[in-house]
Amino acid sequence: MRASRFLFATLRETPNDAEVISHQLMLRAGMIRKLASGLYSWLPMGTRVLKKVDAIVREEMNRSGALEVFMPVTQPAALWGESGRYEQYGPELLRFKDRHDNPFVLGPTHEEVITDLARNELKSYKQLPLNFYQIQTKFRDEIRPRFGVMRSREFIMKDAYSFHADQASLQETYDVMYDTYSRIFTRLGLDFRPVQADTGSIGGSASHEFHVLAASGEDDIAFSTESDFAANVEMAEAVLVGERASATQAYTLVDTPNQKTIADVCQFLNSDAKQSVKALLVQGPSDEKGHTPVVALFLRGDHELNDIKAEKHPLIAAPLTFATEEQLQQHGLTAGFCGPQGLVEKGLTVIIDRAASVLSDFVAGANEVDKHATGVNWDRDAKFTEVFDLRNVVEGDPSPDGKGTIQIKRGIEVGHIFQLGTKYSEALGCKVLGEDGKPFTVTMGCYGIGVTRVVAAAIEQNFDDKGIIWPKAIAPFEVAIVPMNAHKSPRTLEAAETLYAELQAQGYDVLLDDRNERPGVKFSDLELMGIPHRIVIGEKGLDAGTFEYKGRRDAEASNLSKDELMAQLTR
Amino acid sequence: MRASRFLFATLRETPNDAEVISHQLMLRAGMIRKLASGLYSWLPMGTRVLKKVDAIVREEMNRSGALEVFMPVTQPAALWGESGRYEQYGPELLRFKDRHDNPFVLGPTHEEVITDLARNELKSYKQLPLNFYQIQTKFRDEIRPRFGVMRSREFIMKDAYSFHADQASLQETYDVMYDTYSRIFTRLGLDFRPVQADTGSIGGSASHEFHVLAASGEDDIAFSTESDFAANVEMAEAVLVGERASATQAYTLVDTPNQKTIADVCQFLNSDAKQSVKALLVQGPSDEKGHTPVVALFLRGDHELNDIKAEKHPLIAAPLTFATEEQLQQHGLTAGFCGPQGLVEKGLTVIIDRAASVLSDFVAGANEVDKHATGVNWDRDAKFTEVFDLRNVVEGDPSPDGKGTIQIKRGIEVGHIFQLGTKYSEALGCKVLGEDGKPFTVTMGCYGIGVTRVVAAAIEQNFDDKGIIWPKAIAPFEVAIVPMNAHKSPRTLEAAETLYAELQAQGYDVLLDDRNERPGVKFSDLELMGIPHRIVIGEKGLDAGTFEYKGRRDAEASNLSKDELMAQLTR
Repeated sequence: MRASRFLFATLRETPNDAEVISHQLMLRAGMIRKLASGLYSWLPMGTRVLKKVDAIVREEMNRSGALEVFMPVTQPAALWGESGRYEQYGPELLRFKDRHDNPFVLGPTHEEVITDLARNELKSYKQLPLNFYQIQTKFRDEIRPRFGVMRSREFIMKDAYSFHADQASLQETYDVMYDTYSRIFTRLGLDFRPVQADTGSIGGSASHEFHVLAASGEDDIAFSTESDFAANVEMAEAVLVGERASATQAYTLVDTPNQKTIADVCQFLNSDAKQSVKALLVQGPSDEKGHTPVVALFLRGDHELNDIKAEKHPLIAAPLTFATEEQLQQHGLTAGFCGPQGLVEKGLTVIIDRAASVLSDFVAGANEVDKHATGVNWDRDAKFTEVFDLRNVVEGDPSPDGKGTIQIKRGIEVGHIFQLGTKYSEALGCKVLGEDGKPFTVTMGCYGIGVTRVVAAAIEQNFDDKGIIWPKAIAPFEVAIVPMNAHKSPRTLEAAETLYAELQAQGYDVLLDDRNERPGVKFSDLELMGIPHRIVIGEKGLDAGTFEYKGRRDAEASNLSKDELMAQLTR
Repeated sequence: MRASRFLFATLRETPNDAEVISHQLMLRAGMIRKLASGLYSWLPMGTRVLKKVDAIVREEMNRSGALEVFMPVTQPAALWGESGRYEQYGPELLRFKDRHDNPFVLGPTHEEVITDLARNELKSYKQLPLNFYQIQTKFRDEIRPRFGVMRSREFIMKDAYSFHADQASLQETYDVMYDTYSRIFTRLGLDFRPVQADTGSIGGSASHEFHVLAASGEDDIAFSTESDFAANVEMAEAVLVGERASATQAYTLVDTPNQKTIADVCQFLNSDAKQSVKALLVQGPSDEKGHTPVVALFLRGDHELNDIKAEKHPLIAAPLTFATEEQLQQHGLTAGFCGPQGLVEKGLTVIIDRAASVLSDFVAGANEVDKHATGVNWDRDAKFTEVFDLRNVVEGDPSPDGKGTIQIKRGIEVGHIFQLGTKYSEALGCKVLGEDGKPFTVTMGCYGIGVTRVVAAAIEQNFDDKGIIWPKAIAPFEVAIVPMNAHKSPRTLEAAETLYAELQAQGYDVLLDDRNERPGVKFSDLELMGIPHRIVIGEKGLDAGTFEYKGRRDAEASNLSKDELMAQLTR
């Protein structure tokens, strides 16, 4: 591509309304422009990147054996009624009526449409497994679209849906998708982690999110220093470490006037939060008579309760709900001074975290206003109902797979694979005939990649103060050639043209910067745009038979022979 | 692709609701399925074809120098207000509101969005010309969607918009697009004609439609038997042929009681319609005082008035409006018996078609009830104001370029290129600085291809009673290999696998039909799906060292050596 025939739309200033770096750089590099809130037009610079991501995703999906389909953006509301989501989905689901007053939605996802297709087309278990994918426009009417294409209203997804005779077949395709996603993000040149994710309310049995690691990520990812283990922080198991030592101290009541928080109490008593427990008083599930029990949870003073883990315990209500003031009073509990002592005897359920369970001689509330106790020991001073994994993992915790310790980094979710089970196939009646001739409900999986989001995530992971640093596979151009003073020196332009033709013939995606601009303007544009390789053709180099080369991450340019140059380009 | 891992969704019966052959065959071959009125999901079979069309269009657009962009499907209504189309566009423009009650439309086209982008990004004439394209989902809320993807509500368009400093630059890009479209449809393997089209109310200066010729087409295309000339029938010039002979007959009044139509009169008088003129009394444009003149048009009796041509005459009102009964009475005109005699003298404007102008000794109305005249001659018996091209061409007319004669065939419009001029750039204020430092309004062109429609049009042009006959470039698979009795004969399956691997390695898109189905079922599926080459591997052939080959258009299969087979595949 000749720069003179391309649309450069670089901006010197950082736009005011762009909060995150990828949004700023995509605007500044002339990749996207806002059309309306949450709606972006992709300029030629951005579209080149988008189409490269698109091509890699398509290639790997085809390689995996998935079959490409293409479903409408507009979907009849009736199908969403069948799945129950027409009511359940919030205002993110854009509902509208056509000219004949028939209700439709703009598809944020395609489970209903593909399941409808499958129930009509699939007849026999012999046709299974099948995995259908598409790369297609989606719409989600976000209340506050932001971060550019990271959280826009219209976006491009690669979504896939698989159909199976049984769980074993689903697991097989799920594993293939896991490998396919790993290959896709590897080919895209991104530092990513597949992490175990919560299956949440959809109720599937297994789920992994694929996160691009970036300081600006919205999610905390826990992963092992020494193995492949990675999980969302809320999903990572906090394993039991060590054993409880015998009691050495006597149980002692101490005055802690107005010291209600762990931090206050520990400072007041000059003790370590790790040597204390804190109480969280929550509700259990109501019984048939409408009576709602109170459950006391105890964690080590420096640990955080993990709601999702707590909600999995059958004696704790989901969603997690704290006990009311009234409930506390009924049980004679004192907020801020609550300890485990005597609670089981009062008929309360007491669930303690694994880390709290191995403490001895610890500090706890004394169940009296302005009093705590030191030298508290389980069994001797306080009974409990059960030990349970209740907390978020923290850095330094052992990895649950026994290898290495936990590190926590931030990630941007760019992919998600999910064992759906029969949620949609049951709701829409998607059945096929089994080997025994009887109809059965098919099992499903779904697999998504946010194609437009990947572009933003790649930037969040790869930038410096000069601009974007593209991984080679998705750079808008791999190489830029800059002839010096091209408008005065036919010699540099001619040499640039020769190299341009040569590199193109070798399959490189090359930009010949033949614009009538100062070199400084060109250089900063090319750095902002993140072109991996820059080659400057000047008079001196031509005399010396060298090329001035600078990789996008290099601090300095260097003069290279042709062979050296060609070697650099393959890096 | 192994057929056992693919979704076959062929139907034996022709679906009831499919009127046209492409719709029937796309359903029967398992290419598409209806989701709702005018909304279709593309199954794997159809998607393969769609993506091949897509790839050829993208390759040729890139080669032309056009820059790919990607704009949202959802567009703010305000932009459509600026162009005036929010009001002008009918209910085909789907209007809706988002969760914040802001008005949007689902884009049927993107002139407004791209012009908005251009007015923000383009600063100087130096950046021009630029041509932006996208391949993207469009929505048009057709009142009665039909013919499958031929006239669906959601469809895929390649749309392009070019920006220019002047008309000469527009013409240059227009010519490049003309050639690009010709290359695209040639590569797609279609018999097509670029035809001059009416620029209609958009008011641009030049326009060509690209039509795929097919008996089921909605448009009549006039083209030369001996040159490249082609135009919509309503656009083709009817050239003047011959000279008027001298009068030989006397002007004679004849009784023609109740004979009002040309057919009736000619039968009654035993004369040829070609030797008569018929009158069409229409309105001229109203003057400042609101007075509306009557204009008399005369055509040869066997010719049809062309409204579009007539409307181009400054003395004829557009849209074409017939004179009222009252107006006829005011001028003493008698419907059914109107001739040109004496009209100019009465102050009427008389415009006669070229073919009518060279008649002599003809039949015309006598301007009296139940009377006609024979032996009528221009000048001697009837004056006229002007000769003008008023009629539709008919087969056998000379081609306007002087080469060959006119033939008329039906076509399906699949592409349209259009010189927009400044319609949108003016309405939206898209200006750049000129060489003189002063802002000027840019000139635009637009260029569309109905990508989904091309697929249907290709079928309308290429089918037989067995199914689709794909041009090789867009066939879902180029070659199908059928091992006979594969489930009993490992030998045929093994040979099929070997050939499958070999052809794939050579870059062929191959289907290995390893389904556990009878050969007859496979053969009819493959014919229905239109696979260009079929190779059957049987025991006998293996013994003889031959392959049974059948091209999709061949009447019979033939046994070929390996070399002969490979030669066939390159056909």
